[in-house]
Amino acid sequence: MLPTFRPDRLLQADPAALLAYIRRLAEAAAMPIDTYDDLLAALEERIDYFHAHGCRLADHGLPAMPAPAGMNRQQEAAFRAFLQGDLQQAAAFADSFPAAVLLSLCRMYYRRGWVQQFHLGPLRNTNSRLRQRLGADAGADSLGDFPQAVTLAAFLDTLDADEQLARTILYNLNPADNELFAAMCGNFQGDGIRGKIQYGPAWWFLDQADGMEKQLNTLSNFGLLSTFVGMTTDSRSFLSFSRHEYFRRLLCALLAQDADRGLLPADEAWLGGLVADLCYHNAKNYFSLDQK
Amino acid sequence: MLPTFRPDRLLQADPAALLAYIRRLAEAAAMPIDTYDDLLAALEERIDYFHAHGCRLADHGLPAMPAPAGMNRQQEAAFRAFLQGDLQQAAAFADSFPAAVLLSLCRMYYRRGWVQQFHLGPLRNTNSRLRQRLGADAGADSLGDFPQAVTLAAFLDTLDADEQLARTILYNLNPADNELFAAMCGNFQGDGIRGKIQYGPAWWFLDQADGMEKQLNTLSNFGLLSTFVGMTTDSRSFLSFSRHEYFRRLLCALLAQDADRGLLPADEAWLGGLVADLCYHNAKNYFSLDQK
Amino acid sequence: MLPTFRPDRLLQADPAALLAYIRRLAEAAAMPIDTYDDLLAALEERIDYFHAHGCRLADHGLPAMPAPAGMNRQQEAAFRAFLQGDLQQAAAFADSFPAAVLLSLCRMYYRRGWVQQFHLGPLRNTNSRLRQRLGADAGADSLGDFPQAVTLAAFLDTLDADEQLARTILYNLNPADNELFAAMCGNFQGDGIRGKIQYGPAWWFLDQADGMEKQLNTLSNFGLLSTFVGMTTDSRSFLSFSRHEYFRRLLCALLAQDADRGLLPADEAWLGGLVADLCYHNAKNYFSLDQK
Repeated sequence: MLPTFRPDRLLQADPAALLAYIRRLAEAAAMPIDTYDDLLAALEERIDYFHAHGCRLADHGLPAMPAPAGMNRQQEAAFRAFLQGDLQQAAAFADSFPAAVLLSLCRMYYRRGWVQQFHLGPLRNTNSRLRQRLGADAGADSLGDFPQAVTLAAFLDTLDADEQLARTILYNLNPADNELFAAMCGNFQGDGIRGKIQYGPAWWFLDQADGMEKQLNTLSNFGLLSTFVGMTTDSRSFLSFSRHEYFRRLLCALLAQDADRGLLPADEAWLGGLVADLCYHNAKNYFSLDQK
Repeated sequence: MLPTFRPDRLLQADPAALLAYIRRLAEAAAMPIDTYDDLLAALEERIDYFHAHGCRLADHGLPAMPAPAGMNRQQEAAFRAFLQGDLQQAAAFADSFPAAVLLSLCRMYYRRGWVQQFHLGPLRNTNSRLRQRLGADAGADSLGDFPQAVTLAAFLDTLDADEQLARTILYNLNPADNELFAAMCGNFQGDGIRGKIQYGPAWWFLDQADGMEKQLNTLSNFGLLSTFVGMTTDSRSFLSFSRHEYFRRLLCALLAQDADRGLLPADEAWLGGLVADLCYHNAKNYFSLDQK
Repeated sequence: MLPTFRPDRLLQADPAALLAYIRRLAEAAAMPIDTYDDLLAALEERIDYFHAHGCRLADHGLPAMPAPAGMNRQQEAAFRAFLQGDLQQAAAFADSFPAAVLLSLCRMYYRRGWVQQFHLGPLRNTNSRLRQRLGADAGADSLGDFPQAVTLAAFLDTLDADEQLARTILYNLNPADNELFAAMCGNFQGDGIRGKIQYGPAWWFLDQADGMEKQLNTLSNFGLLSTFVGMTTDSRSFLSFSRHEYFRRLLCALLAQDADRGLLPADEAWLGGLVADLCYHNAKNYFSLDQK
């Protein structure tokens, strides 16, 4: 178990909620946030704090990756006015802010050797009545069908072009995107890191036998199963431990079935080594658990 | 067998065909239609007529749900001019008309306790040559890949927010949307109605063994198979009866296969009860067949 | 093995690369290209040259089909200036040029009885760093999720409306589009040609057992497997021969499995005839191999 840095709320669209979040961030970092650069400095301070406490992962949940963008001078000026409480200004920087801040965060992760995760695809808070009664994230979430490929490729490429692309795990929520995500990982492998860009395990709605088998088979068809870090979970409850056990059983059943059909060698030592890699060694190496 | 109310032609884009349809509607309702309110009154009259003859269902076929909208005063004025024969005016209200009239219809269904159905996803009349030879709906239809999630959620939410969301069955034509539709149903369940929002059975191009099995498995993965109303058909021919028999056989084969694999209890009485629910009792309760 | 005409580079967006390609084309055709009509004449000359050397197929790789369009006078004037080296002019005709030139090419194929192929769906050259190091098409390609249905239908319909739609093979790269492509073929069948519009075999990323089985099953569910031309390959290496052997083995295994399950008659002579059609006779007839 590792602590994970989750700055998702910086990427939310509601200006009032964004401002409230930034003010809490300023308190937590014990730094004033009066400019866009101040914001980045406060984020870096929090990342260092998390790093000092053993954090080596970041996680982000988004409908889709934003197209790469930076904040220009006018947008930074609007952001300063926004920080003074002028919520109307948010419209002036909303086009660039999520991409700009996310790119900056990703570069901070890269410099510290972290793993960054992107969970893409949900359609959240669809039920207004439930939201009024119980607040945001009360459960009326489902799957979106947002275009993913172009902006995801462009975002990763922007970081890769500067050689600042951290190890990355990509998770899709709509299974219609399984192959797209698995193929996308192949575009940015390299730098001597085994499985640097990972096609992440089945998640949320897909975290059931059928969804998990499809993820494993898609990964086998489009990439290298042997480099997979296996089950991860961002869940916050003890019940999530059982997901790892469930994953191991499903994986073994799938490999056994393929061996029975003659699609894999019926070589128990070799298959056992593969299972040990997917259930333990690959994650240990990938998340640098030894180096903590 | 129940009569079904199908006002699809109100949602068509061609101004001349729309006007002709509204004139036929005025005749059928024996009411003048000179305003948008007149149109709604005539529709309500027809719904009452259908209701008096045992109709408890409405059905609509659309590429995708329109984003919720209402008719503003200028659009209502343009609609009045359109009703006088000025087809050019259609452009002035076309953005809002389909959503506005459909929302009003849905509220009428809700007040009468009807079930509303939405068949989403086709790309129709693709072949101009065939259309010129044989007219519209001659068969050169296929599957679209229209965005579905955002407008479908917003449309259902608009009705739910006013507590006027009727029991609803959602059908998708492109199987890439299976999981999206199944998950969407979960956002608007409730009101003490078992399976209020249904993920509808495989339909049209998907109405074959593979498509039907995928619908059943997706429903099992994302919702509760036990609350499913089972096969429905909007077809207008006696041949459609065999679809119900085919559905029952496929369902039983699927459950038996899962029991054989140890994924379901091999308990014939329990499985038999499930089959009876999916093939008879659930539909009987859902469509309130006793209350007619 | 047949030579194939591949004018893809005419459809590229980069103005400098497009102009360089057109200048090479003018040399190859030994004709000046000073106008849009000159371009079409030079292309027709090349098509005749390929035809004289036994070519009966054309192939095109695109993210998605362009919406049908023609070049208007202003666009043709901009194109003339572009041909004189004014690259800025490209923006003035870029909206119409790819569709216009592709429609003209397709009409040329039709008049010569060729088969036209469209490979749709890739997202290419995603990795700038790799591209700078190794040039375009160095391998960082993956799957896009571009809308396909509307423009593909409109493009084919434009040719069909003039009765100039050649025999056509449609290939999709994102398997989420399998059913869409298979159904699309049904819209434009006819003219007394058996399987005139073909749902092409699994390709590139999908060219593995799982992808090939899905293509075969989708085709069976949406069309007529018995009219399928079977494996084709546009690859340029001897290793591609093994794809045909792999296809034959997979096809036989799939049919045998269906016969075992009672879904196909266990009639070896009949199944053998089907296999022979899918692996030899259908392709021979479709590509008119006898007529060369």
